[in-house]
Amino acid sequence: MIFITKAAVNQLEKFFKPKAVAVIGVSQNPAKIGHIIFKSLLESKYGGNVYPVNPKARIILNHEVYSSILDCPDDTELAVITIAAQYTPQVIEQCGEKNIHNIVIISGGFKELGTEGEALESQVVDIARKNGIRIIGPNCIGVYDAKTKVETFFQSHDRMIRPHYGPISFLTQSGTYGASFLELLSEDGLGVSKFVSYGNKADVNETDMLQYLAVDQDTKVIAIYLEAIGRGEGRTFFEVAKEVIRKKPVVIYKTGTTAEGTTAAKSHTGHLSSQAVVYNGVFKQTGILSVKNFDELLAVSKALAFQPLPKGNKCAFVSNGIGPVIAMIDEAVKNKLEVAKLQESTKEHLRESFPPFFVVDNPVDVTGSATSKDYEITMDAFLADPGVDVVLPWFVFQDTPLDENIINALDKMNKRQEKPILVGAHGGPYTKKMTKLIQEKGIPVFDQAGKVIAAASALYRYTKFLSRES
Amino acid sequence: MIFITKAAVNQLEKFFKPKAVAVIGVSQNPAKIGHIIFKSLLESKYGGNVYPVNPKARIILNHEVYSSILDCPDDTELAVITIAAQYTPQVIEQCGEKNIHNIVIISGGFKELGTEGEALESQVVDIARKNGIRIIGPNCIGVYDAKTKVETFFQSHDRMIRPHYGPISFLTQSGTYGASFLELLSEDGLGVSKFVSYGNKADVNETDMLQYLAVDQDTKVIAIYLEAIGRGEGRTFFEVAKEVIRKKPVVIYKTGTTAEGTTAAKSHTGHLSSQAVVYNGVFKQTGILSVKNFDELLAVSKALAFQPLPKGNKCAFVSNGIGPVIAMIDEAVKNKLEVAKLQESTKEHLRESFPPFFVVDNPVDVTGSATSKDYEITMDAFLADPGVDVVLPWFVFQDTPLDENIINALDKMNKRQEKPILVGAHGGPYTKKMTKLIQEKGIPVFDQAGKVIAAASALYRYTKFLSRES
Repeated sequence: MIFITKAAVNQLEKFFKPKAVAVIGVSQNPAKIGHIIFKSLLESKYGGNVYPVNPKARIILNHEVYSSILDCPDDTELAVITIAAQYTPQVIEQCGEKNIHNIVIISGGFKELGTEGEALESQVVDIARKNGIRIIGPNCIGVYDAKTKVETFFQSHDRMIRPHYGPISFLTQSGTYGASFLELLSEDGLGVSKFVSYGNKADVNETDMLQYLAVDQDTKVIAIYLEAIGRGEGRTFFEVAKEVIRKKPVVIYKTGTTAEGTTAAKSHTGHLSSQAVVYNGVFKQTGILSVKNFDELLAVSKALAFQPLPKGNKCAFVSNGIGPVIAMIDEAVKNKLEVAKLQESTKEHLRESFPPFFVVDNPVDVTGSATSKDYEITMDAFLADPGVDVVLPWFVFQDTPLDENIINALDKMNKRQEKPILVGAHGGPYTKKMTKLIQEKGIPVFDQAGKVIAAASALYRYTKFLSRES
Repeated sequence: MIFITKAAVNQLEKFFKPKAVAVIGVSQNPAKIGHIIFKSLLESKYGGNVYPVNPKARIILNHEVYSSILDCPDDTELAVITIAAQYTPQVIEQCGEKNIHNIVIISGGFKELGTEGEALESQVVDIARKNGIRIIGPNCIGVYDAKTKVETFFQSHDRMIRPHYGPISFLTQSGTYGASFLELLSEDGLGVSKFVSYGNKADVNETDMLQYLAVDQDTKVIAIYLEAIGRGEGRTFFEVAKEVIRKKPVVIYKTGTTAEGTTAAKSHTGHLSSQAVVYNGVFKQTGILSVKNFDELLAVSKALAFQPLPKGNKCAFVSNGIGPVIAMIDEAVKNKLEVAKLQESTKEHLRESFPPFFVVDNPVDVTGSATSKDYEITMDAFLADPGVDVVLPWFVFQDTPLDENIINALDKMNKRQEKPILVGAHGGPYTKKMTKLIQEKGIPVFDQAGKVIAAASALYRYTKFLSRES
């Protein structure tokens, strides 16, 4: 399955588990990117040593400064470059001399600027290849590993939360989407595994990382933000993806779907995108789960990481407030999901359990009077009904008769992992508190009808893909 | 312009400014809806008296209980009914006797349940009409006025935030969307004016409320969540809407756009929707700004309430992280907005102001090194460039070189109200803090590329509609 060698995998591994890290270009000025990266790495729980490099300084943040990468201790396995683009070739030569084979280039000023920058980027890659070095970047925010806590971020800890470990890994051409992916999953209490922002991806790209993550025990779902596959890289990428998807789901959010967007993407990371229609065709063929926006990328990743796959496409809905359920049903139908027909026995059982003003059908409208117990009765009935594949409760946590026993009730049902349970709810601080408590039990909660259905639809598409392949 | 009489307007006004309120059906049990509504109204800053009605109790929450609405003091101008559906006709008769002409029926158990409930609902309406009573509901969460603080919510204050005053009013068939609308705008620090959840809308409906809000000084934007216009009500509604829109923008989010969604809507609030295509045609014709989901309803309402209209459709983008800008450009093009061509003099000015690794074009990529000053220079240039109609900065607040002076810089530019400024940003607690501080200055911030463009597109559509009408 894997096309790269074990040695290549081991080398990529060093981006996430280096013995020690050198940060090249650590200014005394705390507003400068090199300084922030060094400080952030010191503040993370990374266990290895961190060496600042700057020819003009002696002590920064109580650490001895090395005047060159050549002077750093020999356990340095990862170099993070933050200096101006024109000085990078020389530093990479020195890394080669020093037997450092993993480099992250944070600095911009390469291919994204046009012809001159492109030449510089080629030069950098040539030097790296000659020295057996792998490069992540340039023009990126680099790497993060939630287990080793290694990081290369110029987003300080007070500005950006680092998530705890979770089964989703994220590959991104955009540092911005990267930062928000980490933070938003962190706020959900769900965590992230490995993170790579490779910007211009002069060397290491999604094809490399897909192969690496395919065998990574800590990764269950691979999420990708993509502007363009590098020129000539398309076929390899899709062949690899097709293999990986048999083992783990791959979710992609791709921008640059219009001519204008493509132009902007080119001046962002130097890559020109093919037509949207080409990508969409290939995504479908390979089983890559493509999504329409960043919110859906998060939603689908969460669902795949924490919920079982459904046997079919029949959805059952329950709520104490039906507005968003109507929106979900509209979206479901547009996304080839079906509204389940409940068995007569299921409906009878519910009618007997509920007061006459509850509407028993699909959706089940337990009304604003609903208690936690009413939801439990309904969802248990959905789980038992063979005509239901996906269970979609929406909660109006603001409606005060609904009590907090719902958290344990959901946890109990979810532990059976019989059918996917995707929860919907939106609102203010109380709703957000409830949302987090539920998500911490491993049950994803979505704050918009469309996100619930994007998640349900992706689970079903993955089921279909796997059954077609088997 | 207004089709209803001044007297009718005055009567509707009493829903928002009653001298005193009676809550009918206040249980001793704090988990029951009538009790929660009474308690919530006591806890609000509503200045009038509140009278609990229950034939079987004497004191609830230290208040004297009235055994019937007939026994309540004579300043009662609004009755809130929370008792079982079958007892409502009698109580409405009593309200008539008592000269109470405004009633909110919270209880469900009417038209949404089918034939029998429909008959009961007709009976209720007949009694009301005979007695000159206007009814909001049944099967709803009723009303809220951010100025008088009158409310009829069974969402307790610890479960649901009440927003302060702001220029947006909201009409909704769904209490759930109602509750979240109030909370989400409250979290944004933006506020709400008047709120009506009318559920089955047996009597007062969107046509009445549009006419009322058209002359309401406290309302600048009218937002609506709609499942279906009542049978035979379509023509009047659209005629009224067409008039109102010349004065104030009307934004609608409509669900029930599929056969399955329509069926669900019918069992929610008893109304059957026409085909989506009919609605869409009429929305377009009348200038109603329709949106695709609830997030967009919030986004568009915010933009219309706080930003000037653009002269044209040419958008200029700046960011320290271009990923979401590419997404915005894709969406903009799909929504008939254009990427502005910056004047040569604008570009020259920016090139002279910035280091060589900033990408000066549209979008302007100020890179992760950007400071607040870099944004200010760029946005000032956009405001001065006659080829730019809409200014769209995206902020990666996580990128630590960006400092908090940006808040005052944005405030200063926004106060000129020359061109709409729509801000994008997403992330964790720090980003949310910055977002709130900026919104409190009256500059809307959106947490997804698609929402920024939905807002920009609606502003432009409204500009076009007004110029067509003038």
